[in-house]
Amino acid sequence: MIDLRSDNVSGVCPEILEELLRAASDTAPAYGTDAATEALNDRFGDLFGTPVEVFPVATGTIANALALAQVVPPWGAVYCHRLAHIHTSECGAPEHASGGAKLISLEGSDARFSADTLAAGLRAALGGIAGRTHTPPAAVSLSQASERGTLYRPADIAAIAEVCRSSGLILHVDGARFANAVARLGCHPAEITWRAGVDVLSFGATKNGAMIADAIVFFRPGLAESFRFRQKRAGHLISKMRYLSVQLERYVRDDLWLQNARHANAMADRVATGLSAVDGVRLVHPVEANEIFVELPTALAAGLRHQGFGFSHPEPDMPELVRFVTSFNTRQELVTQLIEAAVALATCRSTLAETKGEPT
Amino acid sequence: MIDLRSDNVSGVCPEILEELLRAASDTAPAYGTDAATEALNDRFGDLFGTPVEVFPVATGTIANALALAQVVPPWGAVYCHRLAHIHTSECGAPEHASGGAKLISLEGSDARFSADTLAAGLRAALGGIAGRTHTPPAAVSLSQASERGTLYRPADIAAIAEVCRSSGLILHVDGARFANAVARLGCHPAEITWRAGVDVLSFGATKNGAMIADAIVFFRPGLAESFRFRQKRAGHLISKMRYLSVQLERYVRDDLWLQNARHANAMADRVATGLSAVDGVRLVHPVEANEIFVELPTALAAGLRHQGFGFSHPEPDMPELVRFVTSFNTRQELVTQLIEAAVALATCRSTLAETKGEPT
Amino acid sequence: MIDLRSDNVSGVCPEILEELLRAASDTAPAYGTDAATEALNDRFGDLFGTPVEVFPVATGTIANALALAQVVPPWGAVYCHRLAHIHTSECGAPEHASGGAKLISLEGSDARFSADTLAAGLRAALGGIAGRTHTPPAAVSLSQASERGTLYRPADIAAIAEVCRSSGLILHVDGARFANAVARLGCHPAEITWRAGVDVLSFGATKNGAMIADAIVFFRPGLAESFRFRQKRAGHLISKMRYLSVQLERYVRDDLWLQNARHANAMADRVATGLSAVDGVRLVHPVEANEIFVELPTALAAGLRHQGFGFSHPEPDMPELVRFVTSFNTRQELVTQLIEAAVALATCRSTLAETKGEPT
Amino acid sequence: MIDLRSDNVSGVCPEILEELLRAASDTAPAYGTDAATEALNDRFGDLFGTPVEVFPVATGTIANALALAQVVPPWGAVYCHRLAHIHTSECGAPEHASGGAKLISLEGSDARFSADTLAAGLRAALGGIAGRTHTPPAAVSLSQASERGTLYRPADIAAIAEVCRSSGLILHVDGARFANAVARLGCHPAEITWRAGVDVLSFGATKNGAMIADAIVFFRPGLAESFRFRQKRAGHLISKMRYLSVQLERYVRDDLWLQNARHANAMADRVATGLSAVDGVRLVHPVEANEIFVELPTALAAGLRHQGFGFSHPEPDMPELVRFVTSFNTRQELVTQLIEAAVALATCRSTLAETKGEPT
Repeated sequence: MIDLRSDNVSGVCPEILEELLRAASDTAPAYGTDAATEALNDRFGDLFGTPVEVFPVATGTIANALALAQVVPPWGAVYCHRLAHIHTSECGAPEHASGGAKLISLEGSDARFSADTLAAGLRAALGGIAGRTHTPPAAVSLSQASERGTLYRPADIAAIAEVCRSSGLILHVDGARFANAVARLGCHPAEITWRAGVDVLSFGATKNGAMIADAIVFFRPGLAESFRFRQKRAGHLISKMRYLSVQLERYVRDDLWLQNARHANAMADRVATGLSAVDGVRLVHPVEANEIFVELPTALAAGLRHQGFGFSHPEPDMPELVRFVTSFNTRQELVTQLIEAAVALATCRSTLAETKGEPT
Repeated sequence: MIDLRSDNVSGVCPEILEELLRAASDTAPAYGTDAATEALNDRFGDLFGTPVEVFPVATGTIANALALAQVVPPWGAVYCHRLAHIHTSECGAPEHASGGAKLISLEGSDARFSADTLAAGLRAALGGIAGRTHTPPAAVSLSQASERGTLYRPADIAAIAEVCRSSGLILHVDGARFANAVARLGCHPAEITWRAGVDVLSFGATKNGAMIADAIVFFRPGLAESFRFRQKRAGHLISKMRYLSVQLERYVRDDLWLQNARHANAMADRVATGLSAVDGVRLVHPVEANEIFVELPTALAAGLRHQGFGFSHPEPDMPELVRFVTSFNTRQELVTQLIEAAVALATCRSTLAETKGEPT
Repeated sequence: MIDLRSDNVSGVCPEILEELLRAASDTAPAYGTDAATEALNDRFGDLFGTPVEVFPVATGTIANALALAQVVPPWGAVYCHRLAHIHTSECGAPEHASGGAKLISLEGSDARFSADTLAAGLRAALGGIAGRTHTPPAAVSLSQASERGTLYRPADIAAIAEVCRSSGLILHVDGARFANAVARLGCHPAEITWRAGVDVLSFGATKNGAMIADAIVFFRPGLAESFRFRQKRAGHLISKMRYLSVQLERYVRDDLWLQNARHANAMADRVATGLSAVDGVRLVHPVEANEIFVELPTALAAGLRHQGFGFSHPEPDMPELVRFVTSFNTRQELVTQLIEAAVALATCRSTLAETKGEPT
Repeated sequence: MIDLRSDNVSGVCPEILEELLRAASDTAPAYGTDAATEALNDRFGDLFGTPVEVFPVATGTIANALALAQVVPPWGAVYCHRLAHIHTSECGAPEHASGGAKLISLEGSDARFSADTLAAGLRAALGGIAGRTHTPPAAVSLSQASERGTLYRPADIAAIAEVCRSSGLILHVDGARFANAVARLGCHPAEITWRAGVDVLSFGATKNGAMIADAIVFFRPGLAESFRFRQKRAGHLISKMRYLSVQLERYVRDDLWLQNARHANAMADRVATGLSAVDGVRLVHPVEANEIFVELPTALAAGLRHQGFGFSHPEPDMPELVRFVTSFNTRQELVTQLIEAAVALATCRSTLAETKGEPT
């Protein structure tokens, strides 16, 4: 299959693999007391231009779950978009890690919510009959890139952070595709994190070329207190932690993370441009990272699938909505091939319809 | 204050108090092994016309939380109305008791959701990208009476139950005001519970004349397995359990529960009729139990409050929305007094407005 | 049955019942915002001679569970005696309420542990391979009176508190029978709580004459922060909270709690003295509260049981170990009757044995 | 440092590394739906000679925690040795994963408990005052090899399993060093697992040559039901799961796991034999796997440490107790070097003592 179902179907990028090879035969202390892990705080501090505390973990799900659990009480409410990965696709991991916190969903087009929507949601929560007995708002989580491949600009985040600050809430970013966002915005990573008011970030690497490695990055001093215990009891204090840490170190060295992301984004642009021009295809969201959401006529989708292209249908109630995801190693020929196939199928379909006198 | 803020501001009805007095000096085994508690299964079995397992508890919140925790896995999803008490007003008790289950909210007018809305929600949950990794639907919870004082008819419940059955979900009813529903519908309690497909009921008594006593009623054989452990670890295996049990026993004996509810409902009707006729007042939901939701001009609300009437504002974003709740011992003179006060205030306001040449 | 199995088989003492009657028909705000509940902080502050924060709850189990959950992280360790009620008899309630905290048991005769034993246990926990990855000590819990009816003196508690302070641990007291302890020691309640270094107390009333009422008393300022949320999500923010509060208010007024406890203690002394004198009976622990633990020849136990006396066997591996518990309303004639029955049975048994030439 | 502190300080064995390289650039479906993961059930079924369900995970801690959480209710009790890793070194991971289960510790020499000790512990739990309200026994967990490097024989396990069966308990084995056990016992892996009555196994690979890979192996049909949800919400449904699976596949292919373990065991024997012969050194436990526990005079330990040998002190209260762990790649020269160093230090010390006329 020519698999564009997700970016986590891709393998490991050569640079990271090389680094793993180099470290493979070393002897080193376990449970994150090795040199590679201990160097991460400085390394990520340099990257973000501010002191940080970094914890490598094995999945993006646990990065989100532990980050949130660390900053909300078991009875706290976390505000996020209705389509947020933490809300729809983590099988209750944040609820489990936090001991019962509640996710409250917000609406917003293109899978983004605004500062105003957040403020309105908080007002509803802080009054009324429910006032004394509901789950008190404790944190806000936004996805960068979002679950529909769109981005929050620095000003969007700053406005949301301002609402958080005035209500005493912590701001978390799910950055499973954080590299794609930074690469596209062309900004310093600080501009869409701590400088804009973000307190803690799930920093993804696995979807963008690592083997198994994501990280939690705490920006606010003191916020990571006792985190090591939380990580251990979640079974995420990896025994040979160094093999996660060397991946992360290499990932952020020499702009590898941004190079990988830039390629994925460029391929996404090509897919978007190419498919948009196809008869009957409609781009549903702006393509700002490496995900393309289009409406595809059912017959066209079937034809592509028949030719070996893999993609997904994110909404069961919207059979025409299709998602393609490009990755650090998506080959340009493949993209061309996809577009040509779509064009050919659409033309053929159009011709057939004309022949039969049917509306196209 | 003439307190119509809720039905739990009322005291204990004389018949139940008398029963407590009678039992007060007895010696009896602890932790629910006493005769009064052990007789409850039979007593409620007679009431519902089917074998049941009944567990007395101290609050409606824990009745809901333990009932749901008993029937869903820690990663399960519970579908309920957006305004459901379990979702808005229990501070995460179901999430805590169940070890992290997730509440998914449904829309619907008058605080009720339909079988169709439920079915659509389930379809969305059972497909798409999220299909393999989301919290799987496990239970459905409806409130009878609803959080806006409206009722589900036997056919409504049967339709919802049918959706549950076809998806393998358990159906729970939050019956904090179950008596008001039965009294109004004039049906046998079986018709809106097990015969319609309900598996477990939070059976409220506290709001309708008990001192401290609610119960969980399991209708489906086997569903209560090991429940005693769950109850104990939640701190709800009451030491002198018999003092809850005698309240419940008396509550359902000689139709006391329905008499109390009928009175509260009748008073609610009077309030609704009286206030509806007042200039500027609009009834927002049909009054089917003992709660009245009206839009009240701000000045009128202020005037009533000034005269000592207590009521609540359920929605912080809707300052004109006001809730009155009547109870088993709401006196008719008081209702008359409330309506007269409202009429007088409205007239006065109208007159003033006319005098000033303002629109009313 | 003449039931001496526990003090929670007794009913409600008349003074508390009278108070419930007085409050029964009042209208009052719900969820602990009523005047009776709001007055408790001052009332208990007077009792203990220091500012406190008091929360009424429905069971001793939840008093312990919520008190501990409030002061330890989900990964924290609580040190307690091997026989502690929280460890053996609450079905994991502290583990549940805290989200997974671990109870570590300590040894010690007569169900009490010493400061030295605690210090040794902590040393073991704070070093070794386990040092980086085990559950860190967070709190210590002692039972006053203990699970074998013995007491900690002010100096014992102060020594334990000193160990706690030097390791940064919170000290909790399970005072299900706190009244019996104060009555026996003849001390001010402050002397065995905050003045000795206790941070939080489960204050029992149910076993000593209340109907359904215990309380959590926080002595350390700030320790109760956000506790209301914890209480609500546990389903223990009782709707008509006032009916717990008036019990507690009456319980501590006019020394009622100590009068009740003094009677129970005096009856326990009589049982102890009387049974000790019986041939073949051995007092196993000093009787310092209202529980008597004796070794009773099997035939004698069977004889007493046959005559209608109820008692319990606390250790399945020690069939001769028997527990009697007296209560606020145990009648003196009944105690006399028990002792006479034991004497008669022992004599008869002795006589029989002599006749048969058997050893007694 | 010549690091013998643990076997997880070693790197990755070449065969497994090669396999990772081979798989690195492939495209494959995520979240365990890839071919390598899907083949594991058959591969491990062949290995154990019975149908099994296998789930790869990233750490031994989560293998234990999820295995236990899967087989006990949140209020269940798990019986294990006082020194069990799950009890002392996982920071409450089993308690967290299970939602509050309780670990009950058993005594036994050489870190093993017997079937008799278990049976006695269960008797104590199933009677007495606590009978109705304690955490009911639900599972038993033994460590193979044990936390002191000793082994349970097939007959030992069968006897324990018999006690489990008769009480309805699940039997779990923590096999972090399972390979070392099988290699030493020379038995088929079935003989110390399912054929002896084991229901679920934490199968370690990381300590014996893998990079990051352990597995949970369910032997009892149906026991893994819904496990995928549990794994996901714990953040352990690894995105690129195939990179764990290929490690595990290679690990058990061509007896690699046993070859690695045999080497580690052989090196452990050499250390044990060599050190035992040193003056003042006492072997504390039989060496049956790859861990050596000795009492080492403080000066000797200091001398070795000074020469660059790394080892650990497992008991803070026993400063002379020292643990060495050998691994799949421990070089024989290094072991020789260690022993020679110890001999030299002991001789020197003895000579010095003689010179000074001190007792040695």
